[in-house]
Amino acid sequence: MADRYANRRDIKFLLEEVFQVESLTEYEYYQDHSMDTFNMIIDTAWKMGTDLCYPVLQEMDKNPPRYEDGQAKVHPAVRIFLDEIGQGGWINADWDYELEGQQIPNIIKFVYGFLFTASNYSLSAYEMLTAGAANIMKTFASEDLKNKYLTKLCTAEWQGTMALTEPDVGSSLGDIAASAEESDKGYYLIKGKKIFISAADTSACENTVHMLLARIKGAPKGVKGISLFVVPKYRVDDSENLEFNDISCDGIEHKLGYKGSPIGQLSMGESNDCRGYLVGKPGMGLAYMFHMMNEERINVGIGAVGKATAAYYAALEYVSQRLQGRKPAEKDPNSPMIPIIEHADVKRMLLMQKSITEGGLSICLQVAKYLDLQKVLPGEEEKEKYALLVELLVPVVKTYPSEAGILATSAAIQCLGGYGYCQDFPVEQYFRDIRIDAIHEGTTCIQGQDLLGKKVSMKNGKALSLFILEVNKTLDEAQVFDNLKPRADELIDAMQELDRVTKYLAGLAGQGKTEEFLADSVLYLEMFGIITIAWQWLLQGITAQKALDNHEDMLKSDEIFYHGKLYTCRFFFSYELNKIYGLSRRLMSNDIITVEMDSKYLQPN
Amino acid sequence: MADRYANRRDIKFLLEEVFQVESLTEYEYYQDHSMDTFNMIIDTAWKMGTDLCYPVLQEMDKNPPRYEDGQAKVHPAVRIFLDEIGQGGWINADWDYELEGQQIPNIIKFVYGFLFTASNYSLSAYEMLTAGAANIMKTFASEDLKNKYLTKLCTAEWQGTMALTEPDVGSSLGDIAASAEESDKGYYLIKGKKIFISAADTSACENTVHMLLARIKGAPKGVKGISLFVVPKYRVDDSENLEFNDISCDGIEHKLGYKGSPIGQLSMGESNDCRGYLVGKPGMGLAYMFHMMNEERINVGIGAVGKATAAYYAALEYVSQRLQGRKPAEKDPNSPMIPIIEHADVKRMLLMQKSITEGGLSICLQVAKYLDLQKVLPGEEEKEKYALLVELLVPVVKTYPSEAGILATSAAIQCLGGYGYCQDFPVEQYFRDIRIDAIHEGTTCIQGQDLLGKKVSMKNGKALSLFILEVNKTLDEAQVFDNLKPRADELIDAMQELDRVTKYLAGLAGQGKTEEFLADSVLYLEMFGIITIAWQWLLQGITAQKALDNHEDMLKSDEIFYHGKLYTCRFFFSYELNKIYGLSRRLMSNDIITVEMDSKYLQPN
Repeated sequence: MADRYANRRDIKFLLEEVFQVESLTEYEYYQDHSMDTFNMIIDTAWKMGTDLCYPVLQEMDKNPPRYEDGQAKVHPAVRIFLDEIGQGGWINADWDYELEGQQIPNIIKFVYGFLFTASNYSLSAYEMLTAGAANIMKTFASEDLKNKYLTKLCTAEWQGTMALTEPDVGSSLGDIAASAEESDKGYYLIKGKKIFISAADTSACENTVHMLLARIKGAPKGVKGISLFVVPKYRVDDSENLEFNDISCDGIEHKLGYKGSPIGQLSMGESNDCRGYLVGKPGMGLAYMFHMMNEERINVGIGAVGKATAAYYAALEYVSQRLQGRKPAEKDPNSPMIPIIEHADVKRMLLMQKSITEGGLSICLQVAKYLDLQKVLPGEEEKEKYALLVELLVPVVKTYPSEAGILATSAAIQCLGGYGYCQDFPVEQYFRDIRIDAIHEGTTCIQGQDLLGKKVSMKNGKALSLFILEVNKTLDEAQVFDNLKPRADELIDAMQELDRVTKYLAGLAGQGKTEEFLADSVLYLEMFGIITIAWQWLLQGITAQKALDNHEDMLKSDEIFYHGKLYTCRFFFSYELNKIYGLSRRLMSNDIITVEMDSKYLQPN
Repeated sequence: MADRYANRRDIKFLLEEVFQVESLTEYEYYQDHSMDTFNMIIDTAWKMGTDLCYPVLQEMDKNPPRYEDGQAKVHPAVRIFLDEIGQGGWINADWDYELEGQQIPNIIKFVYGFLFTASNYSLSAYEMLTAGAANIMKTFASEDLKNKYLTKLCTAEWQGTMALTEPDVGSSLGDIAASAEESDKGYYLIKGKKIFISAADTSACENTVHMLLARIKGAPKGVKGISLFVVPKYRVDDSENLEFNDISCDGIEHKLGYKGSPIGQLSMGESNDCRGYLVGKPGMGLAYMFHMMNEERINVGIGAVGKATAAYYAALEYVSQRLQGRKPAEKDPNSPMIPIIEHADVKRMLLMQKSITEGGLSICLQVAKYLDLQKVLPGEEEKEKYALLVELLVPVVKTYPSEAGILATSAAIQCLGGYGYCQDFPVEQYFRDIRIDAIHEGTTCIQGQDLLGKKVSMKNGKALSLFILEVNKTLDEAQVFDNLKPRADELIDAMQELDRVTKYLAGLAGQGKTEEFLADSVLYLEMFGIITIAWQWLLQGITAQKALDNHEDMLKSDEIFYHGKLYTCRFFFSYELNKIYGLSRRLMSNDIITVEMDSKYLQPN
């Protein structure tokens, strides 16, 4: 195991220097907080990560949950972790005081989420799932439901889940088939199957509460017929007794990674007694789910950044110690071998990982800050501004770390050579664990269609215009720094290239060529993502350069830190941003092969 | 499990139509063969793959070798497979008749290697390792050594290995520390440790014969001091008895993938009685090893192509059957769901896999044909020509499928969504299995330095000039086809871009800036690789178009096949070839960050 899974200094830099999170405490909602309380929270999470989560990372991977007696028997660390989570009030730390929350900003919540995922992604998932379920319940469920189920979720005594996917329904949620039949007793009888449900039923909790999508009998087909139900494994009767609710876990999946957390199949209503409690109004199920979807998707991005960050630090430790080879110009075989970090190609692989992970964390926190501003700013226009920026950037936040993170963790393996392929070191686990992130909570394809098909054009392109204004603000700031002006010019070029591509594709949409318009939306998302991360690197570069300019008697370690940021900024622009020019050539091609080609040409004969 | 792991029709296309392998039988060396005998060999390998290798693919992954009694206990299928291999004469099928070989061309040998790797990579490795060891022994060892050890390798009764790597010596082979002390009895006493030795000691064979690199005491440091030894686990005494040779397997690695084949550690000479038999001359160890290295590296490329091909067919089968969603323009939720292969983004992911795997196989076979021509052509100049083309292209053949194959198998997972992440389907295994290929037999970094630092400039750039001539031949041929001329023009542009980059980098080398020159050699290799595969796709496109033009009453299935080739050619040029323009922007940047930056800037705090 490597010494560290993340860098506290980088979190400080992003929170205090780049995003100036203390400024949030000027708003009434956050007025009881200060940078000190934020740091206390983060330090506590860091300690939990270090003492509790990280030590069992490999153990949980090597001893995945076993399916026994209709349940996933999970690692004992899960209960210990959930106890800490419950006692610390982490599930609902961002909620209003009146809901027993602590009114902490989203940006702080995502930072501790990042620390949990970086130290042990599987473990963190239990908390995130329960928090997601609790959030939906808090927002849309009746007081009675909240009284019966919400408290136990907030204390992490019970496990929450999101039960969407079915055997024949993955990306196409409008086709959900689980049924709900209204009874005359205030509940619905649920029947059907769910699959790929994270923490579907675990030995860590006495009860599991599913936020479950089903179709009320007689409801219209498609998304408008889907409703949201609370479906507990054990329902609470009016005397507060627990009664089995006819929902069973039929088995769990054997997976590539993310092994410490079970993914299971559920059967509802085999004895015709699975009661679902309607949340909000009928037909609003997907809308309620999607209310939380932004947060869940940011969580996926955070999780991918966490895993790739931990992989980076594992690789960095190895290459700093491992001696091998000599500089290219050194021909004397008697000269001592050098640490492999001194080889240019190893530095390239490290800078690639550093630029992806620190750039990825930066955009996650940027969007988290937008969420906070949306919450506390008084004016409707400002609220809308930040809401739109969140909407536009969520597909990027979800996808960039998930996809680039595959390459980053792969590079971490490569840094270790043959050892990287072996289970003695954790990098191969990160490579497996991260592969889920481009799939769950909406695949990369879904994100691409969301960005290009909806977000870019929403409100007549207002979200995109607001994004351009945000980037321009950074570009203006960069102009006064000699070393950053060239980067700003490169980003201006890239933004113009993005504009050309966007207009070209919008032209296809305007001609009613919907399929052609969306065919390469994944590539568009990739291009958009790279440019967004370049913007974040320019922002970080400006912050680092300002710090260097303003503090003459700086700590040597800080000076190194800021210069490291400037090098990484340079690296990202030179090695990563340039990739958009390959992408734009394809995106503006009028040869729409994937639409034109009949699928029979792919079949072997 | 999917129905198929490869496409027999594609092999026929490449062998008979693109590379016209029957023309080899015009040379005396291959005169006893015909397309019929070649096809018989391939059909037999196909049958072995289908009946023997593929059915145990997942089983061998889920039950990896156990280390017991100083040995890796391997799956029973290994012995069954090796029996077939031995009986069929597959180990030395390409050897001269006088060495009990069958004088089959390399191109045929690589095709059956491809089928074994595609159907079960772990299983194929046992054969390839033994063949590699046997080849070295055949070429360089004394008659006595051959009599004692070679026959049993050729019958696959015994296992052969390549024992290079040591605990402190991976990429930097010049630093090998295992020692050899000459005795007065015609052998050397070997002492030391080896690690990462594939099939180091297995229960499938009664004996294991290591081709082992060690340094004779008193030999100079560096590569010139390294000698090659035959070090059997059991040495054969003059009465043909087997005697333990003091070489022990200390354990085996737990790996990300490639699990059916053990990788172990060896200790030599713990009782001071490990006898090594010198092969050829002292100090020539690395040279002998490298004599076989081209073949081993092509084997890696073949193996990567095999795994990615099998992943592609598994994905293709799934997406052809799985129903999900509707076309973007279809808004009626009552309309039936469509097979996901009909979605443009799924077709994009499939075409990406098809273009990488069929393009990868094509370049492997192209180089195999060069090997064959080098062997049979009478003139020195022609021999040199093909030898140089092989030298230049081996880094590409080794690396392109290994690196692009990570993306291809990742795309296969993505095609299956959540199911792709589960072990019920084999795609996650291919993703794990293929990750070794960018590491073993020389990492991607080593290949990049080999290409840019040695091969491009060797003999005053003669290899590169010959490559350009080969590409130009294809470009000329393409001009007459209206649908291929645009591709040819794109390839001309790409070759010019490559020329600019090469000259720019050569300029750095000319100024003595060795480290700067080589810093991005991995990116140069990536660019070179993409262009090389584009060339192979143009070649395939020409062949397909000619077939369509010349055969009016063609089978419908053939027509579909050829059109599939033309679509894939278009796809590769549009989606993949365009990537070189992002790479070239970086490669011609004068901002040599990875050389300039001190490694301290990467350290946290």
